[in-house]
Amino acid sequence: MECRVKFLPLGVEVTVKDGTNLLFAAQEAGVFVNSVCGGEGVCGKCRVRILRGEVEHLPTAYKLRDSLASKGYVLACRSLVKGDISVEVPKEAALSGGKILMDGETSSRGQMIVARNMREMPFEPLVRKVRLRVEEASVASPVADYERLRTALRKALKRPEMPFQIGYKMLRQLGRKLREKDGDITVTIGKRQNTYEIMALESGNKKAEALGVAVDVGTTTVVVHLVDLGDGKTLGMEAKYNSQIAYGEDYITRIIYAEQNDAFGKMQSLIITDINELVDKLCRRLKRRHDEIVAVVVAGNTAMMHFLLGLDAHRLRREPFVPVANIIPPIRALEVGIKSHSRALLYPLPSVAVYIGADITGGIVAVCMDRTDKLSLFIDIGTNGEVVIGNKEFLACCSCSAGPAFEGSGVECGMRATKGAIESVKIERRGDSCDIHWSTIGNRPPLGICGSGLIDIIAKLFYLSILERTGRFNRTINCDRLFIEDNVAGFTIVRKGEEKAPHDITINEIDIANILRSKAAVYAAIKILLSQLNLPLEAIEQFYLAGGFGNYVNIASAITIGMLPDVPHDRIAFVGNTAIAGAKMALISESALERIEHIAHKMTYIDLMMNQQFMDEFVKANFIPHTNISEFPSVSI
Amino acid sequence: MECRVKFLPLGVEVTVKDGTNLLFAAQEAGVFVNSVCGGEGVCGKCRVRILRGEVEHLPTAYKLRDSLASKGYVLACRSLVKGDISVEVPKEAALSGGKILMDGETSSRGQMIVARNMREMPFEPLVRKVRLRVEEASVASPVADYERLRTALRKALKRPEMPFQIGYKMLRQLGRKLREKDGDITVTIGKRQNTYEIMALESGNKKAEALGVAVDVGTTTVVVHLVDLGDGKTLGMEAKYNSQIAYGEDYITRIIYAEQNDAFGKMQSLIITDINELVDKLCRRLKRRHDEIVAVVVAGNTAMMHFLLGLDAHRLRREPFVPVANIIPPIRALEVGIKSHSRALLYPLPSVAVYIGADITGGIVAVCMDRTDKLSLFIDIGTNGEVVIGNKEFLACCSCSAGPAFEGSGVECGMRATKGAIESVKIERRGDSCDIHWSTIGNRPPLGICGSGLIDIIAKLFYLSILERTGRFNRTINCDRLFIEDNVAGFTIVRKGEEKAPHDITINEIDIANILRSKAAVYAAIKILLSQLNLPLEAIEQFYLAGGFGNYVNIASAITIGMLPDVPHDRIAFVGNTAIAGAKMALISESALERIEHIAHKMTYIDLMMNQQFMDEFVKANFIPHTNISEFPSVSI
Repeated sequence: MECRVKFLPLGVEVTVKDGTNLLFAAQEAGVFVNSVCGGEGVCGKCRVRILRGEVEHLPTAYKLRDSLASKGYVLACRSLVKGDISVEVPKEAALSGGKILMDGETSSRGQMIVARNMREMPFEPLVRKVRLRVEEASVASPVADYERLRTALRKALKRPEMPFQIGYKMLRQLGRKLREKDGDITVTIGKRQNTYEIMALESGNKKAEALGVAVDVGTTTVVVHLVDLGDGKTLGMEAKYNSQIAYGEDYITRIIYAEQNDAFGKMQSLIITDINELVDKLCRRLKRRHDEIVAVVVAGNTAMMHFLLGLDAHRLRREPFVPVANIIPPIRALEVGIKSHSRALLYPLPSVAVYIGADITGGIVAVCMDRTDKLSLFIDIGTNGEVVIGNKEFLACCSCSAGPAFEGSGVECGMRATKGAIESVKIERRGDSCDIHWSTIGNRPPLGICGSGLIDIIAKLFYLSILERTGRFNRTINCDRLFIEDNVAGFTIVRKGEEKAPHDITINEIDIANILRSKAAVYAAIKILLSQLNLPLEAIEQFYLAGGFGNYVNIASAITIGMLPDVPHDRIAFVGNTAIAGAKMALISESALERIEHIAHKMTYIDLMMNQQFMDEFVKANFIPHTNISEFPSVSI
Repeated sequence: MECRVKFLPLGVEVTVKDGTNLLFAAQEAGVFVNSVCGGEGVCGKCRVRILRGEVEHLPTAYKLRDSLASKGYVLACRSLVKGDISVEVPKEAALSGGKILMDGETSSRGQMIVARNMREMPFEPLVRKVRLRVEEASVASPVADYERLRTALRKALKRPEMPFQIGYKMLRQLGRKLREKDGDITVTIGKRQNTYEIMALESGNKKAEALGVAVDVGTTTVVVHLVDLGDGKTLGMEAKYNSQIAYGEDYITRIIYAEQNDAFGKMQSLIITDINELVDKLCRRLKRRHDEIVAVVVAGNTAMMHFLLGLDAHRLRREPFVPVANIIPPIRALEVGIKSHSRALLYPLPSVAVYIGADITGGIVAVCMDRTDKLSLFIDIGTNGEVVIGNKEFLACCSCSAGPAFEGSGVECGMRATKGAIESVKIERRGDSCDIHWSTIGNRPPLGICGSGLIDIIAKLFYLSILERTGRFNRTINCDRLFIEDNVAGFTIVRKGEEKAPHDITINEIDIANILRSKAAVYAAIKILLSQLNLPLEAIEQFYLAGGFGNYVNIASAITIGMLPDVPHDRIAFVGNTAIAGAKMALISESALERIEHIAHKMTYIDLMMNQQFMDEFVKANFIPHTNISEFPSVSI
């Protein structure tokens, strides 16, 4: 039997077989429903409301509150379609335009550092157009066309030993192109490992039309910059959520999905379609053509890079966790389906290991850690937290599973940093009540709380002694916002109806425990890396906090909850999306790519997975701010 | 009106428009008719006999003898089809299996030198299969697949710094292939300029199946060797006439034809079809598959290389005579249409200039001139004569137009070195008559005289004082074989009917003048090159005579007529087809290719075209043996 499933408020309808999983039906309809756990019935994020018709319920580990269940809410991943139905996808479960970090905007000090580093890179794009005059051969010097062209290129670029390669098609055009305008020719050359490929020949001056694309393929978001390769300026940028999210919020879940459904090809095409969609948008807006795009540089974690390139990702989730390749030579962008010039080169930035991807190697160069004497520490927090310590002498890194709590998962009222998410909070105690001031992304009615909001709330509640060091609420105080349900205490941030809130927005002890586990993992990773390197915390002169998350978090709150170590605030710089910055740097400067490759080669990776010391540190960090409060002298208990 | 043209003895028929040129009709029918001058009515080689029907005669510079004209002979290139006709293509105008030099057969001392050089090359084929065991990654060392593969390859080849490249398709197979047989893998790697490409991955041992092809594309002949890249042995060889011959015997004529008929594509496909035909034959005979062929190395003169690769050949025949490229990077063999493995690489050997092609650079390495202290002189005589002098310290070269006389053109009874050609002659004078002993190629009834026969005849007639130093017959002697027609003296070698000769086979003063011009050009080129280098003839310790022509010529006769300088015979080695030898050396030894490239870079080219001294030497050499007889002390006058 066929059933029609209608998704509201979008109004999209899809016809599926009787018994089809509702989450799968949503995927089929192209309707995004959060599914952090990938359909395992654990995260509770895929709750939708059945407005009309019936579904069959499967057993589930995550139990919806009765108040929700009674209103028709179900977990989409644990519901089977049984007849025609209408389904409402609540705003907090859907994806909408959020605070995707498209660039280091120049607001913060850290982002200004990245912008300055970008400007100071030698300008030598990976693919560039060079206008030349190639003198005609003479009887006295009957030098072949290709040899004269090479000599002219070497002279123009002041690189007398520059090694070139040329393909069959270019060679066949060479004689004619060289003479169409009497030796006035624009040559597109592209770096290919240790040589330069002659990629295109145009008679006369075509310098204005070389475009490059920098891409950051994140697990959650895809960001694209369209760059003028003539001057290195970003002409425009666009971002969207990674369409793979429908198949799991973390890459492990997506690999499992792909394995079970033979869907690696689908995973690849989802990313490619996302990139093309963003590039299309930019081209339309800026009135440029796809075939002007001659270079594409992609940053992303190792799994995203495997998906993008259609590489075998099976082993990324299995011991001993090996990628197919960390350092991948450039390939033709068209070969993977990115709409561009027929010979455009796609440069995947290199990674270090499964857990230290090209987003990190690119980020290191974006903040210039590899060029300074100063010891710096770089943290990129997403679902995983990556930590790098070093300077121009050495670089060492590790990665921990921070878990998706900072992205709202495992937190009842948690949500992504999208419109309507509470991102910062002020709380004042007034007797038995609290005054709460909060702000949401996009100034929309509040729907839930995103990572920075959660950190703020926990820090402030702790500061007001409403929350104890263990992450449990102080049950001895009187506060009308405190409540206890099934022995779990909670605190109401927004009451239903207040500023059009559709329901109560709360935080409870289970939510807080999840957040503390996430921050503990990050903090323990920092501690272990320092300890392995025999470095005291004080030796670190500069902290870089990267990633979409890092840009909006309140620094004092992050130290208060013990996520960041207790160092002077001026040592901490929020550097924004350094993955896209690294991709763009490589795009406009071949020496940046060389540095990134060098980093991928030389960076020491320290595995925490089996490290007992890490487990100890992790347990000790599961407090506010920490078991050992002497590590946080600035946090008053 | 349509006319049917039937060509005998093949019996091939073609339908053409009324007024079609008969030579063109033959080309359309795929019937080869010699056309040295490319249809200009000058060489007289395209004579055919009209057996039935009529043709319209165009004015012609070359006048057929009345005795021939009365029998229905016409020049095909100056005849227009006017109705249905039958045409006989005489044997001497057709091509048939001749003495195509497929290899330095090990008969002569020179050929043994080449064979020894081949054996002494380090065995490291340009494309090779390497069998490896790539250990699985471990938790302790979770190295990516590609990095482990590279490390294993570098170790197996004892090249710790070996730079690699890998394409998108290979990368996508890597994870799976590596594990199909637990890390037991055979990798095909191919040299690509300064890196090695990973071209194919096969699980387990597939070492036996790597084949390479060495090709010599000559203006006249195409030679192919099929080589086992596992041990460097030639498994088989085949040769045929270059099908382009139908469009002119020299490349200039072919370029003109291609320009006038927009037929560069056709020129390319003719060569490719020839190569494929020979490779097909070898594959069938040896029961091998085309997809086992992973490397193709091609030697050939600069024009043939341009035709083969479809490069713009217009400027090869126009001042200042510039090739599109001398040093051409490898391309995919399939891209030009050579049937082979989908990623097989085609390596065009590099050339020095329009007149010094890859046949010469390859030849130099075949004789190892670039590695010895000994000063050597290398001559390759075909339509052009190329001369190289040097040793491991320096190499200098020049080229002269020897003309096609040695290939039988411009000589009334001249013909190619094919079956039925007189290739050597002994003459004894007995009073007023001569006893003549001659041998033909294939011991067939005599049809004409090929180059080595012409040299022999001139030397012997001169020795017997029948011929004077000027190239004119001594009209004071009585000899029943001497005749005079229209004031031009001639000499009958074979009388019609003798040993089934279809007609008289003669040589006259015009023929001899043509031969003398050819040998004078070669000798003058040697003289000028020595003089430019300030070297006396005695400084040359070794002479290498290469090319199809050189292999059968009588050395004493060649000195007698003044084609070769008068040096001790043991200094002269006939080295055979060194172009194919050079191609094979490169195929099985990357250091040979490096040496050839080095030669192409460093060899000094001396242009004789505008050289007045060359003209003077040329005029002085237009005698037997030379104006200055002191240069030929061993030749008794």
